[in-house]
Amino acid sequence: MSYNLLKGKRGIIFGALDENSIAWKTAERAHEEGAKFVLTNAPVALRMGTINTLAEKTNSQVIPADATKVEDLENLIEKAQELLGGKIDFVLHSIGMSINVRKGKHYTDQNYDWTHKGLDVSAMSFHKLMQTLYKKDAMNEWGSIVALTYMAAQRVFPDYNDMADNKAYLESVARSFGYFFGKDKKVRVNTISQSPTPTSAGQGVKGFTGFMNYAEKMAPLGNATALECADYTLTLFSDLTKKVTLQNLFHDGGFSNMGVSQDIMEAMEE
Amino acid sequence: MSYNLLKGKRGIIFGALDENSIAWKTAERAHEEGAKFVLTNAPVALRMGTINTLAEKTNSQVIPADATKVEDLENLIEKAQELLGGKIDFVLHSIGMSINVRKGKHYTDQNYDWTHKGLDVSAMSFHKLMQTLYKKDAMNEWGSIVALTYMAAQRVFPDYNDMADNKAYLESVARSFGYFFGKDKKVRVNTISQSPTPTSAGQGVKGFTGFMNYAEKMAPLGNATALECADYTLTLFSDLTKKVTLQNLFHDGGFSNMGVSQDIMEAMEE
Amino acid sequence: MSYNLLKGKRGIIFGALDENSIAWKTAERAHEEGAKFVLTNAPVALRMGTINTLAEKTNSQVIPADATKVEDLENLIEKAQELLGGKIDFVLHSIGMSINVRKGKHYTDQNYDWTHKGLDVSAMSFHKLMQTLYKKDAMNEWGSIVALTYMAAQRVFPDYNDMADNKAYLESVARSFGYFFGKDKKVRVNTISQSPTPTSAGQGVKGFTGFMNYAEKMAPLGNATALECADYTLTLFSDLTKKVTLQNLFHDGGFSNMGVSQDIMEAMEE
Amino acid sequence: MSYNLLKGKRGIIFGALDENSIAWKTAERAHEEGAKFVLTNAPVALRMGTINTLAEKTNSQVIPADATKVEDLENLIEKAQELLGGKIDFVLHSIGMSINVRKGKHYTDQNYDWTHKGLDVSAMSFHKLMQTLYKKDAMNEWGSIVALTYMAAQRVFPDYNDMADNKAYLESVARSFGYFFGKDKKVRVNTISQSPTPTSAGQGVKGFTGFMNYAEKMAPLGNATALECADYTLTLFSDLTKKVTLQNLFHDGGFSNMGVSQDIMEAMEE
Repeated sequence: MSYNLLKGKRGIIFGALDENSIAWKTAERAHEEGAKFVLTNAPVALRMGTINTLAEKTNSQVIPADATKVEDLENLIEKAQELLGGKIDFVLHSIGMSINVRKGKHYTDQNYDWTHKGLDVSAMSFHKLMQTLYKKDAMNEWGSIVALTYMAAQRVFPDYNDMADNKAYLESVARSFGYFFGKDKKVRVNTISQSPTPTSAGQGVKGFTGFMNYAEKMAPLGNATALECADYTLTLFSDLTKKVTLQNLFHDGGFSNMGVSQDIMEAMEE
Repeated sequence: MSYNLLKGKRGIIFGALDENSIAWKTAERAHEEGAKFVLTNAPVALRMGTINTLAEKTNSQVIPADATKVEDLENLIEKAQELLGGKIDFVLHSIGMSINVRKGKHYTDQNYDWTHKGLDVSAMSFHKLMQTLYKKDAMNEWGSIVALTYMAAQRVFPDYNDMADNKAYLESVARSFGYFFGKDKKVRVNTISQSPTPTSAGQGVKGFTGFMNYAEKMAPLGNATALECADYTLTLFSDLTKKVTLQNLFHDGGFSNMGVSQDIMEAMEE
Repeated sequence: MSYNLLKGKRGIIFGALDENSIAWKTAERAHEEGAKFVLTNAPVALRMGTINTLAEKTNSQVIPADATKVEDLENLIEKAQELLGGKIDFVLHSIGMSINVRKGKHYTDQNYDWTHKGLDVSAMSFHKLMQTLYKKDAMNEWGSIVALTYMAAQRVFPDYNDMADNKAYLESVARSFGYFFGKDKKVRVNTISQSPTPTSAGQGVKGFTGFMNYAEKMAPLGNATALECADYTLTLFSDLTKKVTLQNLFHDGGFSNMGVSQDIMEAMEE
Repeated sequence: MSYNLLKGKRGIIFGALDENSIAWKTAERAHEEGAKFVLTNAPVALRMGTINTLAEKTNSQVIPADATKVEDLENLIEKAQELLGGKIDFVLHSIGMSINVRKGKHYTDQNYDWTHKGLDVSAMSFHKLMQTLYKKDAMNEWGSIVALTYMAAQRVFPDYNDMADNKAYLESVARSFGYFFGKDKKVRVNTISQSPTPTSAGQGVKGFTGFMNYAEKMAPLGNATALECADYTLTLFSDLTKKVTLQNLFHDGGFSNMGVSQDIMEAMEE
């Protein structure tokens, strides 16, 4: 399946850790659709993951960058333009991490140093990325920036912990910066709110499997996979969605607009 | 620009009145992207418009149908499947009409017979269409149904009159029926909430030009055109958005998430 | 518990069928808080219910009115002003009925005559009521109009059937008419989106008890009762909420902003 | 005007700087309605403001606390319970500050140290406050916690700068913590999204007067005043709203659900 939907487009893809990652699938699919791009991740994530396999497969370069460090982002954006031969058409931000989650701190017992650090990595990094792209005038007109998010930004999922608040901040940054990026540079900025997905990050959340099943029973089309999310992301990078901006787009088999499903009611009755 | 995005897909397109129509542009673009489809409109609209020009250009047939009449819809769906050689992959509902608007009745002085009639044409027709497709099992798995709507369903635009309430009903029908269509038939149902667009229908709304200018100044990317809406609609018909359902998707240059823009503030100060 | 919150205010209360009704509880509480009001219901509902008991208890008169008939509403509003001695300060619309639900027609197999009739009773009646109040200039400045609704207007509850679409229409009417009522008459219009409540009407919905339990487990504060809804409604009739208008206000123990609760996850695991 | 709505209730009120403050008005009105409470503010704000006048008028004590410091909050909550003679029934969080705004840094040119500091003061302080109340089990059952917010959390107001993202975070914290506070302690948590208000803080935002006029023309009932916001806040502290939780409640004369008003269209045409 290839439509040449991104033929000739240049991109930067954050967050491809391993083959379960949505960013990994997006890179594979973007490659199939004719895009060229650089891959990037934090140095620590690069050591843990297998990104070189992806780089070879998609004929792309890896540029390490800690997305909380503006100087790393500056270096990344400069090098990406050199390597790709011009300004950037699309960017995927797929970064999230909560130390409170990792260390098992309950939401009502936060360590606030960790809360700040998680926000910096998961959400303020998106502002830093856009501010650096904006200041360097590194995006082509009608370019597209997408960040991945989760519906815990709107509604309570108790185990999602402080990532809920981080995602709310991230989505607000998409709107706030999206206004200036749209008005001044004709660049669109959106977030995709994806089904729970069994990525390495997702599986770290407590009670993840039970929740996957719940979401599967609730959504009329079932949960969206990482590959399906990649496909959807491509439509937002393409020239077919030029006037979609400041939106938070649910990609979740319909979960977000369900009150209750018949399958859930039946499961409850058992 | 063609990606063969809809190669081999079969569709039904309602509401192509003339070349300003979003449905008209969607038909042209769907044709370019490899789809085959039937065009349909109410008999009275067929007489007023120039749909035969479009039919020739896109190598498609016109089947008249009053979308408020179940028997017309039954006939349409049967004939469409015969002509196209199989079940349907995509449907566009682009139908709306308010007699209160046409006759200049203010929202606080409605003629309720007209209100009911407008609802029947603009919103209940969407239920009738889906119920007929559903009962006849006429949609392919992973097919896609889209209706066009407007943000007056969420917020007040005083001149939009009873069409606001009709669109709220339409969007609710998309969710309600979308659940059953998703669960039982793996078909997705969404609405696109489009910028004010200078179609023949749009231009009939009082103060339309002033409002177009307002929206243009508010939206960071400006208003979306009919052609851009067609492109966006195609992504929802494609295989790249299989898990997007029950959504109301704003296609409006960012208008929907603006509180106020700098351009509006400046225009107010003059 | 009485604060004299509605001392001297005059109202009209629709929909008090029996002592389980939210409207019934609202009448009792409004009486305690110092309001005087008329009670009204459709003639058929008056025969079925026990409204005279309520009328005696609250020292109020009953004026029959079919809320789908403008002439009945005109008569009601004239008589109410005569009986109460002046313009109206508050109105409660608590009316809803689906023939498709009553007759067991599935949402995918609607009888459209019934769908139209249900809409007329459940939603267009609210427009008719406000249009009549508006034309007769029957509301005092800073008066308050409230209609009861349900979250099926935003999200799918499969058994709620066409009442979901009716409630979406009702909420849109609240916004649309609320604009003109606010601007021209300084009257506020809001809807309260209440927890599932075991009224006579609620209990008619298929699978109601199972759903009550589900909502109870989801909402962090549990379901809101009819009496609690009455109390909340009083705050909206009072002088303490003068600038709240065009809002749909969830009164549901927090259900509306839940993605999933721990209690639901545990119930699923059993 | 007094209803004894808060008779016997004990509270903590943050953020009463001077007589323009919403918190100031809330304190005055809460006193009239029979509540007793402590006032608190950061030491620096206490020096700038005139809070002792308010303390005398409302017969209350002032306890200094920097809301970003957990130890200050612990001290505040202990002392408040001692002074008031029992657990707390209501808390108002009315705290916000952006150094980027103060120093004139544009949203696309943030100083991230300042961004973090502003978030800490404006939003994470709300988590710290609730975590301290929760751990100390300092709230009575059916108590009520309210934070003030602004609609920039949902939509773009270009001059609101990083306060938009801070308010999005704040509102998310209200939902996330509200779940646990509701489930475990039967305490409700809500945010009030208030009209632009000419407080000392509000007036610091660039272009504030122009924006006030815009909002006044948009809202069908005009902007809500600080005193009206105080009144609305009291309803949320009262026993009449026990099942309202996790909500963001717009108190804005209807602004939030407007697309455009006739007054704005006319002002644009001039």
